[in-house]
Parts: sequence; C-alpha cells; structure tokens
Amino acid sequence: MENPAITNHEIHPLIAQRWSPRAFDSKPVETEKLAQLFEAARWSASCFNDQPWVFIVATKDDTVNYQKLLDCLVPFNVSWAQAAPVLGFVVAQKNFKHNDKPNAWGEYDAGQAAATLALQATALGLVTHQMGGFDADKAIATFNIPETARPIAAIAIGYAGETSNLPADLQEKEKAPRDRQPLASFVFTGEWGSSAKFI
Amino acid sequence: MENPAITNHEIHPLIAQRWSPRAFDSKPVETEKLAQLFEAARWSASCFNDQPWVFIVATKDDTVNYQKLLDCLVPFNVSWAQAAPVLGFVVAQKNFKHNDKPNAWGEYDAGQAAATLALQATALGLVTHQMGGFDADKAIATFNIPETARPIAAIAIGYAGETSNLPADLQEKEKAPRDRQPLASFVFTGEWGSSAKFI
Repeated sequence: MENPAITNHEIHPLIAQRWSPRAFDSKPVETEKLAQLFEAARWSASCFNDQPWVFIVATKDDTVNYQKLLDCLVPFNVSWAQAAPVLGFVVAQKNFKHNDKPNAWGEYDAGQAAATLALQATALGLVTHQMGGFDADKAIATFNIPETARPIAAIAIGYAGETSNLPADLQEKEKAPRDRQPLASFVFTGEWGSSAKFI
Repeated sequence: MENPAITNHEIHPLIAQRWSPRAFDSKPVETEKLAQLFEAARWSASCFNDQPWVFIVATKDDTVNYQKLLDCLVPFNVSWAQAAPVLGFVVAQKNFKHNDKPNAWGEYDAGQAAATLALQATALGLVTHQMGGFDADKAIATFNIPETARPIAAIAIGYAGETSNLPADLQEKEKAPRDRQPLASFVFTGEWGSSAKFI
C-alpha cells in the first residue's frame, strides 16, 4: 500500500511518497540497504558539523538485541512494530564534541538526520515509522545511554506489508487520508501570525 | 560550485548533493519554488502529526522584513548571508496543539521539517544554509514570537553563487572537502558504544 501526500504544490516524489505506515512485511532489510540508510543520515547538516545523532539498532535475526528494543516500546507500538524487521532508537547528544558545552541544536539536528534517513528509506523501497511512545528510562538503562544523551524517538524500518494483517482499528488508521495544516498557518513574514505573501 | 558528499555507501543524489554553501547568487527565488519548499516541509513526519514547525521568512525585495531578519544574525553570518535572496527562521513550538502540554519532540520535528525543506531545495536547484549564530532574544522581540515557541535556526535560501565573490577565508571553507564521522562511531547495537555489525 502507498499513501502519497496530496500536495497543493509539486514536491519531490521521495518527499511525497514518504509516510509512516504500521503494516510491515517480514522480509529482512538487506545489509547494504541498512548501511545506505545510516550513510544518508550521516550526511545531514548539523550545527558546527557536530553530528549529534546516535542510532541504536537491531535486526530481527539478532533476537536478543531486537527484543531489548521492542521491550522499551509502549504496548500499542509493540502491537504493530513487532512485525518490523528492524527497530532502533534515534538518540540526541546533549553536548558539543568540540567543547563539551550544551548543544542547543542537538535534538533539532537529530531530527534532521532521522528525516534524511526516512527519505533514503523511501528511495530504497523501504518504509519507516517513528514513535514517541516508549519508556525512555528503560531505554537508557537497557542500552547504557549516558546522561549526556537523550533517546528521542524509536523507529521501525522495513518493507511495507499488507494492511489486512493489521488489527481492524489500525487498518482504519492506515487507510485514512494524510493531512497537514495549510501553509498559511505556519509560514509567516514580518511578524508571528502574519502569513507570507508568497504562499 | 557543487561539493557532493564522498560517501562510503551509495545514497540518493538529493542527499549527497545537499550541502550548505555560503556563496549565494543574487537571482531571486521564484514564488512557486518558495511555495514548493514549504510544501515539502509541510509533509514531514511529526509526533501526533502536531507539525510544530513555523517559518518566518522574507524575500530580499521585501526590504523591511528582510532587513529585520538580517539584523538578527551575528556579524559573521551577515557577512555572507546578506547576499541570499531569501532569509528565514525555523521556529519550534513548545506545546502540543491538541492539549497544550509540552511537546518533547518539538525541536526534533522542526529539524525534520528543515531537513526536508533543504532536500526539496536541492531538487529545485537551490541551496540552503542553516545557522545557529543569531540573537534569539532579538528575533523573539522583532517578530513577536510567543513564549511557547523557540527560534532555533536561521536559514539562507537561494541559488548557488560564485565562490570567488566570498571573502578569502570563506572561500577556503567553501572549497574544503566535506567530512563526517564514520558510521561505526554512531550506529550501535545492544549497548551504547558497541558498533552495529551490519555497518
């Protein structure tokens, strides 16, 4: 299943096609494709080129480490993400590497890396679904994540599966049209709330 | 000038070609292309589909509002960004729209939108350069940004210009090879610091 964005202005197909389904196929992700995903994230922009992102990832054949990831998710996310062949966490480092002072762009730049990874996944015929619903303290304890880093999002990666394999309520969600706020509500000029003329 | 990433694994050309030059051409960005940039950002993923990003943008022909943006940048960034035909801020909203409670993914998701915008820019033959170097308090006062939002990055958008028009020290920076940390330093499995086997 695909669920491309219905856009008001033409955007690159990779961006229009990227979405976050919950139906995953059991097919494993090829090792080289996994490397390509993180290579794409690697080339994201970041403040001072600090690259504050870390990924903690396991493939399903690595049963112990995959289960450790799955055990951190909230039950609702476990219900569908357990079908994904790859699970991971996106972690943001809190301090700059060059001076160990707080990096106010750490989470922002981790988001940039994650978005880039998601678009590379689309390019490779894969899908991703990021989740905020996980136990951060458990993730920190399980993976020995230092105090200087924050696990910010979980992510499921794999090939799209059959929507019909999902529970009924999730099938509904999966088929719902995607929607977004209008441009005028978030692109401003001159003052907060004043929509840009060019949109 | 282009400065594509020298990658260890093949990545999508849009991602490899995206970079952050400082040399901008004076050519204005077409109105439709501007709309396409923000349309791309609009379709980014976000926690609860909250879409916590806001952009405050002006084109150079809108002299008053462009100058207001430029005046918020640190002098070093003014030195090159003043050539860009479009300037803006990426702003992250701090609270969820559906319940007004703190959104712990606001900055992360704003980063996702900015990264998506940057890749759409590449697709349109444009370049972007994000900046952390600006006076946030001045931006907040200038644009009446509410307490519930944080201006997190400035961004210059336009067509790539001639490197030779930059000051000598910036020409050096512009031509330097781009570099990134190795995958093994930030893709882990099972435990913090334990490099994933698949990379």
